[in-house]
Amino acid sequence: MSKMKAAAFVERGRIVLEEKPVPDVGPLDALVRITTTTICGTDVHILKGEYPVAKGLTIGHEPVGVIEKLGSEVKGFHEGQRVIAGAITPSGYSNACQCGRCSQDGPDARHGWKAAGGWRFGNTIDGCQAEYVRVPDAMGNLAPVADMLTDEQVLMCPDIMSTGFSGAESGRVKIGDMVAVFAQGPIGLCATAGAKLLGASTIIAVDRLPERLEMARRLGADHVVDFSKVNPVAEILRLTDGRGVDVAIESLGTQSTFESCLRVLRPGGTLSSLGVYSSDLKIPVDAFATGLGDHTIVTTLCPGGKERMRRLMAVIESGRVDLSAMVTHRFKLDEIEAAYELFANQRDGVFKVAITP
Amino acid sequence: MSKMKAAAFVERGRIVLEEKPVPDVGPLDALVRITTTTICGTDVHILKGEYPVAKGLTIGHEPVGVIEKLGSEVKGFHEGQRVIAGAITPSGYSNACQCGRCSQDGPDARHGWKAAGGWRFGNTIDGCQAEYVRVPDAMGNLAPVADMLTDEQVLMCPDIMSTGFSGAESGRVKIGDMVAVFAQGPIGLCATAGAKLLGASTIIAVDRLPERLEMARRLGADHVVDFSKVNPVAEILRLTDGRGVDVAIESLGTQSTFESCLRVLRPGGTLSSLGVYSSDLKIPVDAFATGLGDHTIVTTLCPGGKERMRRLMAVIESGRVDLSAMVTHRFKLDEIEAAYELFANQRDGVFKVAITP
Amino acid sequence: MSKMKAAAFVERGRIVLEEKPVPDVGPLDALVRITTTTICGTDVHILKGEYPVAKGLTIGHEPVGVIEKLGSEVKGFHEGQRVIAGAITPSGYSNACQCGRCSQDGPDARHGWKAAGGWRFGNTIDGCQAEYVRVPDAMGNLAPVADMLTDEQVLMCPDIMSTGFSGAESGRVKIGDMVAVFAQGPIGLCATAGAKLLGASTIIAVDRLPERLEMARRLGADHVVDFSKVNPVAEILRLTDGRGVDVAIESLGTQSTFESCLRVLRPGGTLSSLGVYSSDLKIPVDAFATGLGDHTIVTTLCPGGKERMRRLMAVIESGRVDLSAMVTHRFKLDEIEAAYELFANQRDGVFKVAITP
Amino acid sequence: MSKMKAAAFVERGRIVLEEKPVPDVGPLDALVRITTTTICGTDVHILKGEYPVAKGLTIGHEPVGVIEKLGSEVKGFHEGQRVIAGAITPSGYSNACQCGRCSQDGPDARHGWKAAGGWRFGNTIDGCQAEYVRVPDAMGNLAPVADMLTDEQVLMCPDIMSTGFSGAESGRVKIGDMVAVFAQGPIGLCATAGAKLLGASTIIAVDRLPERLEMARRLGADHVVDFSKVNPVAEILRLTDGRGVDVAIESLGTQSTFESCLRVLRPGGTLSSLGVYSSDLKIPVDAFATGLGDHTIVTTLCPGGKERMRRLMAVIESGRVDLSAMVTHRFKLDEIEAAYELFANQRDGVFKVAITP
Repeated sequence: MSKMKAAAFVERGRIVLEEKPVPDVGPLDALVRITTTTICGTDVHILKGEYPVAKGLTIGHEPVGVIEKLGSEVKGFHEGQRVIAGAITPSGYSNACQCGRCSQDGPDARHGWKAAGGWRFGNTIDGCQAEYVRVPDAMGNLAPVADMLTDEQVLMCPDIMSTGFSGAESGRVKIGDMVAVFAQGPIGLCATAGAKLLGASTIIAVDRLPERLEMARRLGADHVVDFSKVNPVAEILRLTDGRGVDVAIESLGTQSTFESCLRVLRPGGTLSSLGVYSSDLKIPVDAFATGLGDHTIVTTLCPGGKERMRRLMAVIESGRVDLSAMVTHRFKLDEIEAAYELFANQRDGVFKVAITP
Repeated sequence: MSKMKAAAFVERGRIVLEEKPVPDVGPLDALVRITTTTICGTDVHILKGEYPVAKGLTIGHEPVGVIEKLGSEVKGFHEGQRVIAGAITPSGYSNACQCGRCSQDGPDARHGWKAAGGWRFGNTIDGCQAEYVRVPDAMGNLAPVADMLTDEQVLMCPDIMSTGFSGAESGRVKIGDMVAVFAQGPIGLCATAGAKLLGASTIIAVDRLPERLEMARRLGADHVVDFSKVNPVAEILRLTDGRGVDVAIESLGTQSTFESCLRVLRPGGTLSSLGVYSSDLKIPVDAFATGLGDHTIVTTLCPGGKERMRRLMAVIESGRVDLSAMVTHRFKLDEIEAAYELFANQRDGVFKVAITP
Repeated sequence: MSKMKAAAFVERGRIVLEEKPVPDVGPLDALVRITTTTICGTDVHILKGEYPVAKGLTIGHEPVGVIEKLGSEVKGFHEGQRVIAGAITPSGYSNACQCGRCSQDGPDARHGWKAAGGWRFGNTIDGCQAEYVRVPDAMGNLAPVADMLTDEQVLMCPDIMSTGFSGAESGRVKIGDMVAVFAQGPIGLCATAGAKLLGASTIIAVDRLPERLEMARRLGADHVVDFSKVNPVAEILRLTDGRGVDVAIESLGTQSTFESCLRVLRPGGTLSSLGVYSSDLKIPVDAFATGLGDHTIVTTLCPGGKERMRRLMAVIESGRVDLSAMVTHRFKLDEIEAAYELFANQRDGVFKVAITP
Repeated sequence: MSKMKAAAFVERGRIVLEEKPVPDVGPLDALVRITTTTICGTDVHILKGEYPVAKGLTIGHEPVGVIEKLGSEVKGFHEGQRVIAGAITPSGYSNACQCGRCSQDGPDARHGWKAAGGWRFGNTIDGCQAEYVRVPDAMGNLAPVADMLTDEQVLMCPDIMSTGFSGAESGRVKIGDMVAVFAQGPIGLCATAGAKLLGASTIIAVDRLPERLEMARRLGADHVVDFSKVNPVAEILRLTDGRGVDVAIESLGTQSTFESCLRVLRPGGTLSSLGVYSSDLKIPVDAFATGLGDHTIVTTLCPGGKERMRRLMAVIESGRVDLSAMVTHRFKLDEIEAAYELFANQRDGVFKVAITP
């Protein structure tokens, strides 16, 4: 049995590079040799013990690579093909999938639903921060990469871009909408880009770090608000002439950003939430118009599957959105512990790191 | 100037029958002589001082009557016509209306949005618990009543039926959905009826009062849960074989019912909220799958306008839903203070009262 | 290799019972022993040579049966389980499936789309008018049947009920809508039932045969129109007071019914088409308001998959809709040629036949 | 009574500048002094007698101007304000408006629907190719213009931009969609811009004139197809790798473009039609997959109302779309007959003309 290197969760505070067997491939699987991957904010939650995973699990859910081997039942792909797979790898056959809720895919034939059950890589099965990864239900999850696109150009597709765009999509951003996006980390930046892509005419991006606000401007923000200098709620109401925004996108996962989103919404507006929350949320009754405001609050877990990946790569290929500047640092897989250290502490102006085995 | 009797809010705890001038009619208005009206749970909130209105305001937002006089610019109706108007009387020309959010209609030409601004009767203008009411923007708000329908048959249309049904509609109930409805007051009962009308195959109604649970069964509930005897969350999960419901409708306005709705939802489900809340709400992070559950929370204020009223009356006329049993008590307008006393204290198995001037 | 009986298409005009090998089971398949099946109008098209299939193909796409054998990769089911499968058996992993268009599922990994490609039973693979059928992609297509439901009670689910209901669903029938359904064969009758299930308040059913119009009334029609006695367009405009219907459902597949649907629509209405057309269609420019009428024309192929089947069976189990009277004749598989003869000629007041091996 | 100049339809082939009285203003109206207007392709249909209007009617439905006088009941605006109004001027109070179908607004209180009834300017009431125009239902139709925008910058909003964008909106263009737009006149060019604004990743524009194809590229087309040189259906299938497009937009109003749209659609795709057709349309049964292809055909009449206008102007103000190059020729109102001559004959590379009284 051949061996490979993989970044595994050992215990709270420790993700370390280990030697592991190269995964076996079942009839529906593909084995992908990773050529580039990255670290997600969620991986940092795992590192800190804030999101529980099994000890020894390989972390990472953003694979770019080459098909090394295909399961006996996998048709329509060939070994050697360059591919990505989404962070969410739906089975395709669950009741959740058949309701269009692939991210809530469950292993249970009776129900076919599990909260966030579609997220398997680095959560319930071994992930991508390794030399090889086993992709389950490969026929629905392998998305070929066009030759003209580099690994780094498609590195945001599996999670960051899919999640960020979904913030605008689930918010049902329409032509001429005013949109506020709270927090401009990688997800929030993609939400900003997504709002622009859907025709919003006024996009207001909120953060504190100048490099993030600058990047937000490049990706589509018409106004940037530094919440360390002004009250963002008051500023957004001022910018929208007292009316409030049609859609507010939460991209951080805190009470403060969630509540601010509600407070800047016009009546009948939508709060589109992308953050991962670690404690209970409060809905202030006044911001909620005592329940009479026709408000919508919607949360979205990263949409996955090969069709989603195909579409996101098409957006990049057509030049509609350019996220390549988001890769600010590059590491070898051997250096992944240093990459975690940098990324987890948000040092050196990092947006995203590229990890190459 | 002729006089009429009207139930006015005097101060916290006191709604009294007063003599007032019959309203003037502006060019876009209609004057309607009330033949039947009713008292809403919201009116009780006003009575108790929980929802603030101006002192001296005539209360009530559920009119059935006859056109007494039409404004000079009102076309398409005639005096003597039997009509209803919705609790919400949209202007038709605001930005909110043009976004399909009539209930959030604002008087402001710059913005055209105000939280719950479409609710005018008994809130921002004089209401219907009177001998006459002025209907604003009459061309969009008067809905003729078919001869074959009695006043009591259409008495639920202006608010109760429109609001209750909207709970199912905003929840996007689909054929074969499982739906839970928390609280079976008049609104919740109509939500139950609405869920059935939209094709839900399993409807679970929760309340405590036997007469309400019995009425819920008559209107479409497949299962009824008495929350004073069993834990409704556990019971609903049991009834749905552990899966949870597709849509949970909140019809009371409390933390307990709101939270229970979240806890019985399947991943990817929708909490459709109809209640009027008097304090902050908490979203428990576990019930919210830390924000990764593709949940939707949507609130809806009673849809109004003549087309909505036309459709609701058509539902009654076709025999699809029969709400006539919901009128349990009848009072003369002169006795309205007694009617409030009965209704506010939920005495004598009251669902709804009919008030006739 | 064991043998079974199967109804195969031999040539135009001849579907005959043959002896064939019992199908092999691949890793993702299930072998189902048929206990009840039926004949569809589409099978009659095949018989007549109007819809081409390969010679020797086993016909039929409406299976009720028992799992005889499961493929090595199929989890969540067990042999001996009573199941149905939809007429459409989506793979779950194609791009079409991931766009929510399972019926247009394609075998091609590059595109993943093929017109009507999700319809495999009795079209591109052997079907169900046999003692056994191989169900492909079994995990997404086997739907367990509750003990309390008989075979005949669920026999309409795989196609007739799913297709008919989809006519109302794709037409986006709303509470209070007026709906016309042209042709009251089995599909049209289910469209009538579906329109009622979605809250239409006025349903007008058009046909010529008294037994069909009578059945339409039982399933939800408020008005029935015998097109051999009155002009159905004029009659529907009369019944809707000149306004036209919100949704018109075409359930036959002819120019005449298609055109009548357009002519009875109000501006902004939807023509929901279920028919299989054998020649070009004409859109009369006047009925189309020269393209300025905000019309929608939508066609729908039977929705399949286990979740759809689960939901349809739940509708039956809850008693919302009772289609059992639609089975008017019963035959043994050995007598299937006689069954075809009866059904193809619409003799003896037949709606649907039940075939039992 | 003061006089003004106005371009009136006299008879087939003759629209002439006449002297007419300045319109009276009713309680709900506004009188707008036109500062810039334009000629639409529809006006050319009227000129040619292909679309019937009353003799003597003032033509034109694209007003930019200044409020000269407000009706007694109009609130929220002031005289001297710069405004536009949409080509479609919904009443706001009809049943059609309350169903979100403002363009099909009817004057009839019983029904409230009329095909294309929302189009009043230059169709059923005097239009904008004049010194003054009466704007009906002014509160819902006057949209203030920001100081920073010139007349020519907003001149496309009332019709061209609203209609063109609606082609993409009604087609429900999604992120990553492939879209074909047949004909690149002003409407088609705006459909191209709209598809880009909604996130389409591949836009294929079809026309014959080099200047139109060049403009299409500037507004968002990734590929342009000259149908005089290649078969556009074959070319689009080639460009989409045999798959077909998700959405095909028809912007001309001919059988040829309508049919080509159907032929380039993938199964499950949407044909979004904007053209005004002058004869019956044919749906080829093969292109329609015999009715089994889950196709949608949707037509859209220009969305109007002040909120739509506000949104379109916001798109321009934010720099998302720049249509200023579409004004290729400028005329005084006195020269309007020459302007018609140029525009009707598509001479001199004209896209749109600006007419200034």
